[in-house]
Amino acid sequence: MRVGVIGGGQLARMMVPAAVELGIDIAVLGEGPDASARLAVTAIGAAGDADAVLAFARDVDVVTFDHEHVPQPVLAALVEAGVAVRPGPGALAHAQDKLVLRRRMDELGVPQPVWAEVADEAQLTAFLDANGGRAIVKTPRGGYDGKGVRVVTTGAEAADWLADGPLLAEEVVDFRRELAQQVARRPSGELVAWPLVETVQGGGVCREVIAPAPHSAGRIADLACDIAMTVAEALDVTGVLAVELFETVDARILVNELAMRPHNSGHWTIEGATTSQFEQHLRAVLDLPLGATGCRDPWSVMVNVLGGPEDGDLDSRVPGLLAEHPTAKLHLYGKAPRPGRKIGHVTVTGEDLDDLVFQARAASARLSGTA
Amino acid sequence: MRVGVIGGGQLARMMVPAAVELGIDIAVLGEGPDASARLAVTAIGAAGDADAVLAFARDVDVVTFDHEHVPQPVLAALVEAGVAVRPGPGALAHAQDKLVLRRRMDELGVPQPVWAEVADEAQLTAFLDANGGRAIVKTPRGGYDGKGVRVVTTGAEAADWLADGPLLAEEVVDFRRELAQQVARRPSGELVAWPLVETVQGGGVCREVIAPAPHSAGRIADLACDIAMTVAEALDVTGVLAVELFETVDARILVNELAMRPHNSGHWTIEGATTSQFEQHLRAVLDLPLGATGCRDPWSVMVNVLGGPEDGDLDSRVPGLLAEHPTAKLHLYGKAPRPGRKIGHVTVTGEDLDDLVFQARAASARLSGTA
Repeated sequence: MRVGVIGGGQLARMMVPAAVELGIDIAVLGEGPDASARLAVTAIGAAGDADAVLAFARDVDVVTFDHEHVPQPVLAALVEAGVAVRPGPGALAHAQDKLVLRRRMDELGVPQPVWAEVADEAQLTAFLDANGGRAIVKTPRGGYDGKGVRVVTTGAEAADWLADGPLLAEEVVDFRRELAQQVARRPSGELVAWPLVETVQGGGVCREVIAPAPHSAGRIADLACDIAMTVAEALDVTGVLAVELFETVDARILVNELAMRPHNSGHWTIEGATTSQFEQHLRAVLDLPLGATGCRDPWSVMVNVLGGPEDGDLDSRVPGLLAEHPTAKLHLYGKAPRPGRKIGHVTVTGEDLDDLVFQARAASARLSGTA
Repeated sequence: MRVGVIGGGQLARMMVPAAVELGIDIAVLGEGPDASARLAVTAIGAAGDADAVLAFARDVDVVTFDHEHVPQPVLAALVEAGVAVRPGPGALAHAQDKLVLRRRMDELGVPQPVWAEVADEAQLTAFLDANGGRAIVKTPRGGYDGKGVRVVTTGAEAADWLADGPLLAEEVVDFRRELAQQVARRPSGELVAWPLVETVQGGGVCREVIAPAPHSAGRIADLACDIAMTVAEALDVTGVLAVELFETVDARILVNELAMRPHNSGHWTIEGATTSQFEQHLRAVLDLPLGATGCRDPWSVMVNVLGGPEDGDLDSRVPGLLAEHPTAKLHLYGKAPRPGRKIGHVTVTGEDLDDLVFQARAASARLSGTA
């Protein structure tokens, strides 16, 4: 069994340990020799280079992804060549294009923010007038980690982006917190869900995840699980699906975005769940039976490590972290620190949530050079 | 930070996930391109080939081992060349030569079986006469997994081995069970112990491990921990040390053998302990602060997967195992199945020991083709 991963970022990197343990061969098409997943890189090429992608895919049993940025024509060429592509192009379109996503969620009756496709300033102004004078505008494609997202109060504020094509306008949701629901689905239909988690964002980037989401048992968790399972089946997702959600102040659950690959909101599963998202993704795309998804401890807390204000010698900060936090599990991505760049994460699990949050934040800050 | 591992077996293989997560570069000197640790193999060569080992060591910060079979002259050449070798040659000698081990344990006052060095049949006969007419004879070097070990009742039964040099003769210990105590030690002296475990052998090969060892809290666990810590410090072991022990029917603890590397008795730590033996070994040989060693669940049970009576298509047996045992964690070593060969292991953790033993054995048997 040989899995090929397009893209050599940290998500591909973290598939490597799972593949090694399961006895699965893994190959990665990396962006360069210094890709985060470099240990498993067998070919170098861009995700948009059809020739490179096709050549890479020739030696593997199934192709999956580190990111959503493989163009549809390249995906179509893979399918045309008889390659098993999981998730498939039809599913991936909903993670690549936010307008495609919004239309489909409406068709499925899945709750989401009020939205509109706006092609010019007049249409955006009309949307603003109808929605309290503020809106989030998003470029339909290519945005991530806060890029391609802007809050506007006038149509003119999006004029530059409108010059390149229609935008997605969304109401500014009055949310209490953000949540994420992960599920995994096999081509043969088996579908399992991890516990709902709470995600804490800052500057458009995921900062912390608490699993399970506090105070969410019952209706909220059921709603989130139903939504994610509905989406996974309707879109024929294979592999891991993360559904990012808003919990509104009036206790509704709205779909924010989708990711069809392992996702930052699921890094806690490496230590915190019986089956990690990385192992499960490999099992799912190979159509192997899925593993148990329960929590191994009452609480898991994951805090990202972002490059700090001064980049510098990350290695020199590791001993202090390890000495002060002997129960913290450190994950480093082999990426050069730059301010704000995700370069690793720390997970702690146990019974005392307050203490775990303290430990995980302190450990992460140690590495960012902010402690 | 770059660690070089001499030997590409499953122990090197299982260091790879730990290295990836910690952001440590790992390089392996493998026996061939199909080594179990092939993903991290950067050079091919025999552990006895000084030129190959020296060339390999040039590119790493510290050298450690998948096995004990690097000859002392090669180790000496590494030290001579200024390479950090962990554990060092002086410590490794005790894992390479059982006579060296026995002499040193006596010097340290560590309890062990009655033993003698026997150079000929007459000396072995004298040992038999003094010890109830039965003895275990062992070749001092090169034995493992039941090889190089024989039970004899007459001197003549070891004549073939005696032709090659002196042997170790040991009393046949009347033991209740076998135990193993693992510790990890850094060059700077930090020393930590995992809980004592029970090991179940069959045909000279480790079959099962239960962690912690049932009914061992208190005196037995304290004795075992004291012995392992004494040995680690006296021998200046760096990295992980496993001390295989007999618990006698009259409740004594005797040292059987040592391993100065990750060991089969510690595979349970991947899921069962806060810090796995593989992560800890890397931390220890890099002189990084060591991680917490407590159990994550009340019980962990590890069962080896041995090649079954019919070799054949291992891949075809994996789906059944995964489907029937969704909580079992499967580890495959990428080795071709041959009868009796260790090709993987399965670990389950939880609260109900009887059920865990049942699950782990059933899952393992599924893969061996014996279920």
